[in-house]
Amino acid sequence: MTDIPKSHPRYASLMARERIADGVRNGITSAQGMIAQGRGETFDYILGERTMRSADRATLAAAAALLLAERPALSVNGNVAALVPAEMVELASLLNAPLEVNLFHRSEDRVRKIADLLRSHGARMVLGESPDCRVPGLEHSRALATRGGIYDADVVLIPLEDGDRCEALVRMGKTVIAIDLNPLSRTSMKASISIVDNIMRAVPNLIGKIRSLSGSPREDLQAILRDYSNRNTLSDALLEMQEYITARMRELDTAGRSAGR
Amino acid sequence: MTDIPKSHPRYASLMARERIADGVRNGITSAQGMIAQGRGETFDYILGERTMRSADRATLAAAAALLLAERPALSVNGNVAALVPAEMVELASLLNAPLEVNLFHRSEDRVRKIADLLRSHGARMVLGESPDCRVPGLEHSRALATRGGIYDADVVLIPLEDGDRCEALVRMGKTVIAIDLNPLSRTSMKASISIVDNIMRAVPNLIGKIRSLSGSPREDLQAILRDYSNRNTLSDALLEMQEYITARMRELDTAGRSAGR
Repeated sequence: MTDIPKSHPRYASLMARERIADGVRNGITSAQGMIAQGRGETFDYILGERTMRSADRATLAAAAALLLAERPALSVNGNVAALVPAEMVELASLLNAPLEVNLFHRSEDRVRKIADLLRSHGARMVLGESPDCRVPGLEHSRALATRGGIYDADVVLIPLEDGDRCEALVRMGKTVIAIDLNPLSRTSMKASISIVDNIMRAVPNLIGKIRSLSGSPREDLQAILRDYSNRNTLSDALLEMQEYITARMRELDTAGRSAGR
Repeated sequence: MTDIPKSHPRYASLMARERIADGVRNGITSAQGMIAQGRGETFDYILGERTMRSADRATLAAAAALLLAERPALSVNGNVAALVPAEMVELASLLNAPLEVNLFHRSEDRVRKIADLLRSHGARMVLGESPDCRVPGLEHSRALATRGGIYDADVVLIPLEDGDRCEALVRMGKTVIAIDLNPLSRTSMKASISIVDNIMRAVPNLIGKIRSLSGSPREDLQAILRDYSNRNTLSDALLEMQEYITARMRELDTAGRSAGR
């Protein structure tokens, strides 16, 4: 791993990039996963590399939905495994939920490596190595699912997921929680709850909110969900992107004036 | 190469991604180049994946600067070589300018492969394999340069370049032309002329403008340069990004209303 000083203004972003590069080297992450990471970096940059108020509200709603779930399940792909393996295991343990490995570019070797990685972090229930059913409406190996995991779940967390699979899970009647830095993606548009935040901030934040809400009466959790609008959340995220760009334009104007042009 | 139907709405973007993936497989592009490609994809998406008016103006100014140059030089790295090798060779031939391979993550093997690729496309003057001097203010192998190439050039084209190297070349007194999809990057901010456009559109556009300007009197070319403001160009690019986000927000509002939420 390249040595990055903690004082670097973009330390967190560079560390995430290193984790993805390590994931590719270790056979956890696909090469295409590096392009996905790059796309996310730009959105995070335009959002100011911080958890927006709207993302925090979405995370609270996600915590409530996961606590109310009868059969929650957590999806893990190669980028998720590279970026937050310990945190996903902690989340699964808190919720007593299975982790299910699901890959866009499936290879049995990669599925096994990711499952082993999760188990090395203490995961007790890891699915995905022996799928026994299919998500309707998806092609090829992307449809593969497991009974007792995502297939039967009422609430599913799908971090860094593609739009097709998000839509297919919504069509099955599930409450789908996405973590996706692009507020305009099909995943964000179609999910029940879209957390527009960097996964490295979002999962720890989700764990914290689940901890603090875990003693709450069901009615309070239901009220949180009732008050939540995913459309408003995405609209607010776009508004915050605009504000960032406007602020940068002002800086540019100031710099331009002081340079005399 | 994955088979992508030409009818796909994001065909050009997916083809570019395939070229980068092929570049990594063939040892032309570094793995980090895939993350850079992903970052670019997001900016291109926010710009609507088309050449903006401001980018077209910058390309015109770049054409004028290259035609007025006494010793132009063109820099080529692993992403440039993967995306537009034939076009860079055509540009070099039009300008009778050297192509110089310069890598952020230098390896002699990769330099040689890129030089061979450019020669296979007909390049007559390829430098970078035997650097004989250094760009002041840069560390390690990134400083390596060649006399008769970028080191002595008065006008340098640096597509997909990092901010450090851009700044160092500007400090040497050169006219530096960048091609960079991030209007907020240090490269865009520091370059003399910043073309905020996808390199796969920008280089053919630059070739076309050089062809149509090549018979013009020097005074006309000088007037184009005099009228050009890089600050205004970047400001306009940011404005077009904002307009795109505003348009997407409106769509979201309409979709939200029709869904009754």
